[in-house]
Amino acid sequence: METYAGIDLGGTYIKGGIVSHSGELLEEMQIPTEADGGPAHVLDRMALLVRNLMDAGKGRAVTGVGIGVPGQVIVDQGLLVEAPNLPCWENVYVAEEMEERLHIPAILDNDANVAALGEYSYGAGRGSTHMLMVTLGTGVGGGLILNGEVFRGASGGAGEFGHMIIKRDGARCGCGRKGCVEAYVGTQGILRLLREHLEAGEASPLAGRDPNGITPRDISEAAEKGDMTARSVLREAGEWLGVGIGSVANLLNIDRVVIGGGVAAAGALIFEPALAKVKETALKVSGSDITVLPAGLGNRAGLTGAARLAMNLRI
Amino acid sequence: METYAGIDLGGTYIKGGIVSHSGELLEEMQIPTEADGGPAHVLDRMALLVRNLMDAGKGRAVTGVGIGVPGQVIVDQGLLVEAPNLPCWENVYVAEEMEERLHIPAILDNDANVAALGEYSYGAGRGSTHMLMVTLGTGVGGGLILNGEVFRGASGGAGEFGHMIIKRDGARCGCGRKGCVEAYVGTQGILRLLREHLEAGEASPLAGRDPNGITPRDISEAAEKGDMTARSVLREAGEWLGVGIGSVANLLNIDRVVIGGGVAAAGALIFEPALAKVKETALKVSGSDITVLPAGLGNRAGLTGAARLAMNLRI
Repeated sequence: METYAGIDLGGTYIKGGIVSHSGELLEEMQIPTEADGGPAHVLDRMALLVRNLMDAGKGRAVTGVGIGVPGQVIVDQGLLVEAPNLPCWENVYVAEEMEERLHIPAILDNDANVAALGEYSYGAGRGSTHMLMVTLGTGVGGGLILNGEVFRGASGGAGEFGHMIIKRDGARCGCGRKGCVEAYVGTQGILRLLREHLEAGEASPLAGRDPNGITPRDISEAAEKGDMTARSVLREAGEWLGVGIGSVANLLNIDRVVIGGGVAAAGALIFEPALAKVKETALKVSGSDITVLPAGLGNRAGLTGAARLAMNLRI
Repeated sequence: METYAGIDLGGTYIKGGIVSHSGELLEEMQIPTEADGGPAHVLDRMALLVRNLMDAGKGRAVTGVGIGVPGQVIVDQGLLVEAPNLPCWENVYVAEEMEERLHIPAILDNDANVAALGEYSYGAGRGSTHMLMVTLGTGVGGGLILNGEVFRGASGGAGEFGHMIIKRDGARCGCGRKGCVEAYVGTQGILRLLREHLEAGEASPLAGRDPNGITPRDISEAAEKGDMTARSVLREAGEWLGVGIGSVANLLNIDRVVIGGGVAAAGALIFEPALAKVKETALKVSGSDITVLPAGLGNRAGLTGAARLAMNLRI
């Protein structure tokens, strides 16, 4: 049986797994990234993790290694151009470095793309043809699968759903622009929506707390306990998300949207208003084709998608 | 030499041409659609046009016929689902009807897609890989070429650039929604921008005229003669267009945008602010990859693109 290793490189942990051709996760491990040690040290640790995974499988060899990294990638060259959250990573030929260490063919892509590929292949995207993956967190990440393949655009920059403009001259986004999806649905956007409600004098258990200490999780928890302010905030964030997805539906007539990330844990409180707004925003054909689902693989989407990517290697 | 016929079915005229494999337009003709005669009559006329084109080429046979139609198409079935501007056209198997009349394989797509394919193959899109075609007119049409092929989405609905939301709760669009690209850059959107300037009391040669009689062409002409109000209107429309294109760039990292249609005749007055806004809206990578060009084929984009589509027929 051919198996493939998938590596999900994060700023804090390196996650890894071994996946069969049919998508079964046979082994799984994670180790601290030790990012302060610099690229060469982290590459050694990534290779170590792959060896440990193979050892755990009683010396099972893998046919290829796929790697997801948090930064801009040129896939054809196996090159990580830059990674904002990894100190000193600039123009690192990650695939080649891994091949030298492991003597196994390696392929690289960014973390949003491999997560999208994971969900498409083994998770909530199964059965679709054109899928948008949205990851809600501090930022709003995106990955696109078109015709069953990762769509990267002219130089790997595709999928930046979070920076589509849905309200020109709207709220300020972390990227410096105004009115991006992320400015309403990213962590800071959601907290701003909350502040607007609290400043309007609404009663809420969140009102008495230090505003800088409140997280989207606190809002979800308050909403689950019935706080109407928290519910309004999540509904509004969901509606903004729905406007963005509806725009994508009109441009691409996608048949599936998969939503993951911490904020997505708010579940129906954010999904239902999002879906209603998608149907309102999308034109007839595109609106009826689209299904919006929560991600199915949690934090395993990246490593299984990375392994799936390795199956495409021409070996 | 293999040649292909391209047909561009419009509400008023049927345009047709014969195109060589290398894209040379060998013959060209147009005849009135006579749409009131109904689908069977119009199909007869389309077949007649193809025969006339072949006769004009001294009996040259064509290998395939491509047809662009103004409506929703299911390409695999050669089916025109509906065509708002053609009375009584509903669920017409246009490709099959043409094959019965001509005994030549036929393929069908919507007019926006064939125009995009024409510009991509023979016009301002040459040399690109991922292209958005925008057609500015009463509506704002769109067609997408991704990885060198027409991208249609799950059921042929892709490319509706004009109905992406760029200002939630913004100006009312003809589609009933608010804040679509078309609400700012379609004919009615541009005329509304003009009204806003005139109602603010700006001096303009357009101020004295019946507002219902003014067209985008009048605005272009006034702008060319130096009218500052008309120039402001075109600049603003260009900026709205740029916000929409910048959003597409962030999602798809396209490398080319081709802009055609009547309003595009305003040239630099609309293109320069559009391009500036694209660069401002797009993230670094996507912004530096993109080139925005005026369409190169005028009203021949549809028929040459339709012929190009026929080259893909598996015969």
